[in-house]
Amino acid sequence: MPSSTLSNGSNATTPGRLASVYSEVQTSRLNHPLPLPSVLRNPFKIIDGPKSSAAGNPDEIAKLFPNLFGQPSAKLVPNESGMPGAKLKIGVVLSGGQAPGGHNVISGIFDYLQDIAKGSTLYGFKGGPAGIMKCKYVELTSEFIYPYRNQGGFDMICSGRDKIETPEQFIQAQETAKKLDLDGLVVIGGDDSNTNACLLAENFRVANLKCRVIGCPKTIDGDLKCKEVPASFGFDTACKIYAEMIGNVMTDARSTGKYYHFVRLMGRAASHITLECALQTHPNATIIGEEVAAKKQTLKNVTNYITDIICKRADLGYNYGVILIPEGLIDFIPEVQQLISELNEILAHEVVDEAGEWKKKLQKQSHVLFDFLPETIQEQLMLERDPHGNVQVAKIETEKMLIQMVETELEKRKQEGRYNAQFKGQSHFFGYEGRCGLPTNFDSTYCYALGYGAGALLHSGKTGLISSVGNLGAPVEEWTVGGTALTALMDVERRHGKFKPVIRKAMVELEGAPFKTFASLRGEWAIKNRYISPGPIQFTGPTSNSINHTLLLELGAQAQEDISSKTC
Amino acid sequence: MPSSTLSNGSNATTPGRLASVYSEVQTSRLNHPLPLPSVLRNPFKIIDGPKSSAAGNPDEIAKLFPNLFGQPSAKLVPNESGMPGAKLKIGVVLSGGQAPGGHNVISGIFDYLQDIAKGSTLYGFKGGPAGIMKCKYVELTSEFIYPYRNQGGFDMICSGRDKIETPEQFIQAQETAKKLDLDGLVVIGGDDSNTNACLLAENFRVANLKCRVIGCPKTIDGDLKCKEVPASFGFDTACKIYAEMIGNVMTDARSTGKYYHFVRLMGRAASHITLECALQTHPNATIIGEEVAAKKQTLKNVTNYITDIICKRADLGYNYGVILIPEGLIDFIPEVQQLISELNEILAHEVVDEAGEWKKKLQKQSHVLFDFLPETIQEQLMLERDPHGNVQVAKIETEKMLIQMVETELEKRKQEGRYNAQFKGQSHFFGYEGRCGLPTNFDSTYCYALGYGAGALLHSGKTGLISSVGNLGAPVEEWTVGGTALTALMDVERRHGKFKPVIRKAMVELEGAPFKTFASLRGEWAIKNRYISPGPIQFTGPTSNSINHTLLLELGAQAQEDISSKTC
Repeated sequence: MPSSTLSNGSNATTPGRLASVYSEVQTSRLNHPLPLPSVLRNPFKIIDGPKSSAAGNPDEIAKLFPNLFGQPSAKLVPNESGMPGAKLKIGVVLSGGQAPGGHNVISGIFDYLQDIAKGSTLYGFKGGPAGIMKCKYVELTSEFIYPYRNQGGFDMICSGRDKIETPEQFIQAQETAKKLDLDGLVVIGGDDSNTNACLLAENFRVANLKCRVIGCPKTIDGDLKCKEVPASFGFDTACKIYAEMIGNVMTDARSTGKYYHFVRLMGRAASHITLECALQTHPNATIIGEEVAAKKQTLKNVTNYITDIICKRADLGYNYGVILIPEGLIDFIPEVQQLISELNEILAHEVVDEAGEWKKKLQKQSHVLFDFLPETIQEQLMLERDPHGNVQVAKIETEKMLIQMVETELEKRKQEGRYNAQFKGQSHFFGYEGRCGLPTNFDSTYCYALGYGAGALLHSGKTGLISSVGNLGAPVEEWTVGGTALTALMDVERRHGKFKPVIRKAMVELEGAPFKTFASLRGEWAIKNRYISPGPIQFTGPTSNSINHTLLLELGAQAQEDISSKTC
Repeated sequence: MPSSTLSNGSNATTPGRLASVYSEVQTSRLNHPLPLPSVLRNPFKIIDGPKSSAAGNPDEIAKLFPNLFGQPSAKLVPNESGMPGAKLKIGVVLSGGQAPGGHNVISGIFDYLQDIAKGSTLYGFKGGPAGIMKCKYVELTSEFIYPYRNQGGFDMICSGRDKIETPEQFIQAQETAKKLDLDGLVVIGGDDSNTNACLLAENFRVANLKCRVIGCPKTIDGDLKCKEVPASFGFDTACKIYAEMIGNVMTDARSTGKYYHFVRLMGRAASHITLECALQTHPNATIIGEEVAAKKQTLKNVTNYITDIICKRADLGYNYGVILIPEGLIDFIPEVQQLISELNEILAHEVVDEAGEWKKKLQKQSHVLFDFLPETIQEQLMLERDPHGNVQVAKIETEKMLIQMVETELEKRKQEGRYNAQFKGQSHFFGYEGRCGLPTNFDSTYCYALGYGAGALLHSGKTGLISSVGNLGAPVEEWTVGGTALTALMDVERRHGKFKPVIRKAMVELEGAPFKTFASLRGEWAIKNRYISPGPIQFTGPTSNSINHTLLLELGAQAQEDISSKTC
């Protein structure tokens, strides 16, 4: 009965979420069964693949990771004798922003230890990497973990954005590893956190510590992936939550017939979320940052693209629509970057006069762009600065900015007799709503396998790998499990005169199947109303196990590639 | 397969949603069975209750509705012989803002006609009441209606906000009724639309038209209800969609540990949605407009209430939280209303000087309030006007305003040494996302019964009633079906020297069970973290048939009242 959840919380049963009461749906998720790939359900061993290289500049990566560079990938295969019995002491840490499924990675590690390495101990470092450095941890027990199974959030042990990067910090981490007698550490994080995991693995190896380090691919942004790691967890759930909302707004737009909804979607560095939501819902216009950058589009180009669609639709009698915009859009527009860097310079050194004389310090293109911006955005650029005095690009509400720019352009066209309708913009930002939702069945199962597999990798003595679960288009029992050398995902960047290793963010590929599919259909979506309303995520029934379009399309393209490379 | 929805829409099968493709969940909803109350599943007749009165000023209502005033309520009861066979011509219209379930009301009317009055015709007036006046309609067939079953939105025939109120408009409506030879009309709408439905019923009766008029209670705001009409449809779905998002944001707040999320929720006139969402999710602070008004609170009071909670939480080490705010908050604050009316006056007649001399025209209290407002809100009040030159209160983003006012107050307390933590506010507005979602099982079934019952009322010759389905806490088969005299819901308001009939909006009752339950628990929710994450609406499984807290609590209180009145 829902009314029972109005009690004072006495039905909470555990220390971790002691203060919590659960909704019916949350409760129903606790005992949702988590199927394992068959290779994990039976005795297995780990076999090595060929020597690996790097995503770029292998020589530099080799220098940065002398002990780890070139490691083969690892693959779990059935084996009669199974893994050796051994008690392990393992630590786990959540790093960076939340993504649905993190709790299941931890559950997977825990269950691996319970099932295959009985008598082992799992420590959860609290509050992210800082918890490792400060040796703040909690011993994870079955009772502690249970209430987090298949639940959203990272609150089991919480996360943090600290990095282990200075020599002192590495020593702190070593001390924790020694103090807890750790055999291994699992770092659940995005590209940066996995880079750090690899640096830590190298550092521990150099220091002759027994503690191994395994990464797990986490980010709702979907920009940590490669052939071996076909998805980062959380992306599936977040996109489905956003798509539910977009679908609702589309139905509203079609029913009301008078609003253009401009929806900005989380995802600063890459536009995967926006692309996936477009594939799920068929909006009238979708801006993909990577395309804007590749085509060197200006803000005016983007404004005109949207305005053209609005005018064409007005001719057809449709004065409503839905437009998707990636959070990071203006980071992709070179002229905006230029303007902002000039502004940062001017604001730091010049007096900004009311009359606008200061604007003469701007280069011509930047001056034109500044004048093109809506007044509220101009003010935001001038007034809101971060502690370093820099313009706060992240605070700009791009969806509102675009509404205003489209309004201005439509007004102009109206005066020229090229548009004769009413435009009403409504702005939305979908972000936090998606990061902590209850994980979909896909994310729940995928994360559990990632964690279980990470346990197996540590158990077999592997380090510097990222847990890799593949063949995701097939039924779960056929999923492959293994690890990929983190160094194989890396390239270097030059920062402050030094090479820094980085896992290259996986951007939206304009030649990739998801974008090409989108590009082939968007013209039709623009003019005709092909809206799809995905509805709320279902946890049971026939619709509960669907996979997101991006992954499906990428897997399909990969399969075709594999076939053609075999037939060649 | 989800990828199939990426086709060009060729799997759409119907004229109405020809351009649409359906998601898996949408498709799965099409054939969701709609159980009927048992009284509708077997032969029935309609019996009359006692003579009715009005919600207030019965004498005036009697004058305004000489033909309809005092009508008894109607109740369906089992009867061996059933309704007489007769072909009917019925019209249906959607009026006002969208609410999930509207399509099912139409399906219910249609199925009634098919099942009980075979050979009948159902016309859907397009685009709201204007469709009646302009005689713009579509004949609804089984094929036309099918793709809208259990789907969100109002796009089957769309809605509109026009009113039939002038003598000319009434004549237009009469002409349409004659032209289509209508036996009846169902008006699906909120308080205003149902008032108009009753005026139309009276008008048709005076004009000696055979066309009867029956209303149906629609509004996500939940402010059209009374003992006989325990709920307006759409409220259940909208609240559950908002509560899903709030629950996700709560999990995010707890996981991140550094944000205060200020969530503004749709619902301008009454705060039912905010109250229901609070009961579902247990936020740290919730502002209920009716309480603010009853206690004559100022904006400063509200700011201090929130700030006090933030400070107490900071003492406990919690620098995060979730705060719910009703969309209409500032409409409930008398001092804000006063300021706005003074501003409207001043802005219409005075020159607003940069130096702020104009502010001396404000009364002292308004001047103080104006200076208390954040600068951006001051600007918004001065700059954004509607076509009549009035300040646009609806455009004020109350959640952002409160964040800024709380920031200022916290800064002050910091300087006084009473607060020593970091405050980061995040603002959200949940509105359009909830109006057009896929209806919950409750709304789907409730709407179907409302429509089916409306058919029965028209069939038996009733007019000026609102379709009333009751006993909603019991299993569907035990629900009661009937109609309540619309005049019984009415009071009068004096406008332009004349009495106007109005259905009094049902506000949040501070002595009602939902508010009292909330009030008894909010102190605990403020300090301890009792967050509940309701998760996405489920359409199948054990969690799919839950009823919202407001309705459950009101039904519970009603049942107790009934018992005590019987025992007295």
